[in-house]
Amino acid sequence: MESGMFKEERNGWSGYVEWKEYPKKKEAATEVLTKLGANKPPEFQFNGTPTSNTMMEGRRWKVMHTALGFPFSAMPSTSWNVIRAEKASEMRHVLEFPYNGEPLPDKLAESEITPNRHHYVRNHGGIPSIDPNAFELEVNGLVNQARRFTLQELQNEAFFPQRTVAITMQCSGNRRSEALSWNPGEGDELTSTPWEQGAISTAKWTGISLKKIIKVCCGFNPGAKHVEFFGADTYIKHNVPQNYTVSIPITKVQSNEVLLCWKMNDESLPKSHGFPLRAMVLGYIGARSCKWLYKIRALEAPSESPIQRKEYLHYGGQIGKHNGSFSDGIPLQEMPVSSAIMSPRLRDIVLHEGKIHVSGWAYSGGGRWPERVEVSPDGGCSWFAVPASNLTRKYRHAWRLWNLELPVQKEAWVELRCRCFDNAVNTQPADISEVWNWCGHLINSQHRVTIYSVNKGTEAARRGLESMSLQGVPLAPITAPSKLQANPERESCLFAERDPDN
Amino acid sequence: MESGMFKEERNGWSGYVEWKEYPKKKEAATEVLTKLGANKPPEFQFNGTPTSNTMMEGRRWKVMHTALGFPFSAMPSTSWNVIRAEKASEMRHVLEFPYNGEPLPDKLAESEITPNRHHYVRNHGGIPSIDPNAFELEVNGLVNQARRFTLQELQNEAFFPQRTVAITMQCSGNRRSEALSWNPGEGDELTSTPWEQGAISTAKWTGISLKKIIKVCCGFNPGAKHVEFFGADTYIKHNVPQNYTVSIPITKVQSNEVLLCWKMNDESLPKSHGFPLRAMVLGYIGARSCKWLYKIRALEAPSESPIQRKEYLHYGGQIGKHNGSFSDGIPLQEMPVSSAIMSPRLRDIVLHEGKIHVSGWAYSGGGRWPERVEVSPDGGCSWFAVPASNLTRKYRHAWRLWNLELPVQKEAWVELRCRCFDNAVNTQPADISEVWNWCGHLINSQHRVTIYSVNKGTEAARRGLESMSLQGVPLAPITAPSKLQANPERESCLFAERDPDN
Repeated sequence: MESGMFKEERNGWSGYVEWKEYPKKKEAATEVLTKLGANKPPEFQFNGTPTSNTMMEGRRWKVMHTALGFPFSAMPSTSWNVIRAEKASEMRHVLEFPYNGEPLPDKLAESEITPNRHHYVRNHGGIPSIDPNAFELEVNGLVNQARRFTLQELQNEAFFPQRTVAITMQCSGNRRSEALSWNPGEGDELTSTPWEQGAISTAKWTGISLKKIIKVCCGFNPGAKHVEFFGADTYIKHNVPQNYTVSIPITKVQSNEVLLCWKMNDESLPKSHGFPLRAMVLGYIGARSCKWLYKIRALEAPSESPIQRKEYLHYGGQIGKHNGSFSDGIPLQEMPVSSAIMSPRLRDIVLHEGKIHVSGWAYSGGGRWPERVEVSPDGGCSWFAVPASNLTRKYRHAWRLWNLELPVQKEAWVELRCRCFDNAVNTQPADISEVWNWCGHLINSQHRVTIYSVNKGTEAARRGLESMSLQGVPLAPITAPSKLQANPERESCLFAERDPDN
Repeated sequence: MESGMFKEERNGWSGYVEWKEYPKKKEAATEVLTKLGANKPPEFQFNGTPTSNTMMEGRRWKVMHTALGFPFSAMPSTSWNVIRAEKASEMRHVLEFPYNGEPLPDKLAESEITPNRHHYVRNHGGIPSIDPNAFELEVNGLVNQARRFTLQELQNEAFFPQRTVAITMQCSGNRRSEALSWNPGEGDELTSTPWEQGAISTAKWTGISLKKIIKVCCGFNPGAKHVEFFGADTYIKHNVPQNYTVSIPITKVQSNEVLLCWKMNDESLPKSHGFPLRAMVLGYIGARSCKWLYKIRALEAPSESPIQRKEYLHYGGQIGKHNGSFSDGIPLQEMPVSSAIMSPRLRDIVLHEGKIHVSGWAYSGGGRWPERVEVSPDGGCSWFAVPASNLTRKYRHAWRLWNLELPVQKEAWVELRCRCFDNAVNTQPADISEVWNWCGHLINSQHRVTIYSVNKGTEAARRGLESMSLQGVPLAPITAPSKLQANPERESCLFAERDPDN
């Protein structure tokens, strides 16, 4: 196979190769990829996921991209360079290529609006680089008049009023690592990215309503039901390359809940987030908010794309790869209510005087919002509500950050939990077993964080900590055997007293 | 206090007394009711609720209505006569006055559309009787032009297009008895009606969109946020009488999700359901769908009515009457996902050959719909999905009925459970303790039904049941000591074999 046969499509559009319009080309690429033979995903679920920033490499994706020749062969390195330029080095880089990364908990809980450098990124392929002056958006299918728009036309306020909206975006796989640590599921490092609780972020997005664009196309044809988005990136599924393609119901467009955006927190859209144009579908899973958006097509049914019909499906808890069919899955669009504790973190040693400062996020999809957040200091027996003043403001399409001083009675290991009730009074199931599903989507059970609680206000702890401090014996790691020297006089006296014949 | 001083308001409107416009009259009635002195609700929660059709009488409500003189003194009997004429005698009559009743489980599971005679009824006062020719609807407040409409005008298709929509209505207190059987809460037989799983029903409602009426009033004024409904019935709260008054956000009106209806399942609206006109607020708790609707007022904030601000609130699980304030509650509008088993019923003895036929309903509020219903034959360990073909069709605002042949391994007492996932993949918490709240609203934990499972296909059961049949010994009641005669020859032989020295 000749290198370079899968050429870039247009001048000024690096990394964009069109597949849908060229079935022959698609077949040729599939042949190349199939000939590669066994190219199994590394088994990270049984072997354990790497810890923070010992990221997974995405080797099999690199091999496939190399096999397809230029421009694909260059993408692993160009994409990584974009990430290094645009993203904070202290992100939790989960997968190098295609890039997947989430902010660290501290950063995430720091402000209602996530800085661009920390906003989570979920890519399915390489990052295209598109000259905004060469960019065009095509709108066709079941609209009364197919149209093409330059970026200048879309950004002309005389045609299209602009809106800036605070939007929380969340990957449907957020919190997947909680499911996997209970029991493994599909073990592909890309399609089943082992996110912690950070595949969620909030930004102020600026753009125009897709409804207005459809109006300029003289409206939908009768029979139009879904709107399909095409991204310029290439995603390889079962050796078949395709442009990233998803769809959403037109009712979402009609209710003004779909934006086309070119600004993120008042800055130009970063390349890793879809420059020069992306969709933002409010209240839906992140996967529908197509990046590097270059074509929109109105359809009479959901997209036939495998991303729409074979992925992002929610299976029942007794469906695995041996007994499931795609149509058993619920196609994911809106998201359920969820929340997570950002501080303290799992296995922290927390010194306190009866109260522990706990903080985190709470979110619900589909335009619903958190109404009440509760935190339990005793594994779900009692629950303390976060005071209204300790929750950030309500938005229709964004999370609320929260914090509270949680009374903790127990010393030793304590399981903290949080849960949210949204405005429809839906809440989170208690246990991971209630929400576990084969592909690990929409994990929203109560988030549990076990910490070691030390109440330094008690007489015993005060005395012990004082001795440790005097003798220079550290408390951490908590499991390391104590090197504390006893007070010989006191201890021998107390031991003697234990004797009943004393 | 002179009898008859609280006069009916208009000719042709029996049982309608206006309160809001006459503060003096309201004060006088409050004085009468306050002088009645101790008139405590009977304690049904500690004493147990009456079983089916041994209904609670509502004695304290009758005493208060008698004290106010005519027309109130007549309402307990005229209302009950309406119920006897309009409702099936085999309803579960929970409270005689004000009338509250739910269909029996068999009737509820029988058809997707509940017959009018079986549709649940939740009243807060007596049933007014309004002459449709004398009826007028007033629309005022923050609209550009206040208007009055006769019923003929509202029903004129030249002005207002008519719609017929399948709508599931559910009382926010549905399934409250499950909460109370775990732990008691507020013990008032009216405000805390001890519903089983039947305060939910579905009908085809015919009427017009409130949005169109507001258009005829030349739209909302800027600043309008809520729409207030007034019902002609009188509800007494803390000795203060008032017309039933609630409100909903105007966004609900703007999205065409508020209907004014005069037909129920193609029949004239029954008196007990609000004749001649009622609101239907799609996807919201039943309490917002105001009956005997005679006035609509646009407001800049939610209604100050106590029904809006002091009831229908969802408190956290650690709030009781000693430590709560009204503003701690989430004002109930949309409802969470829920489901219930209608057959078999609690403590049924079920004879089967490995599979039990289970049926029920599943519902989610706010325009969401059930996507998956699962049933557990083992107290929540394994879950079997109801096949798509065994679920009734999807509506945006109605339930789905379901049934399945559930494999049951265990014999003896078995806890069956059901749960639903809606299209936002919200699901139901496992345990009642997770959703219990002081006023028992929106109880939506997994519905649990314990039955006695007898697998007549096993050798032991086959032989035992045959003997019982031959000897005329009944299986039920299951707890009655068996009168079965042993087979002396066989039993003595088997006893002998138990001896290790045999």
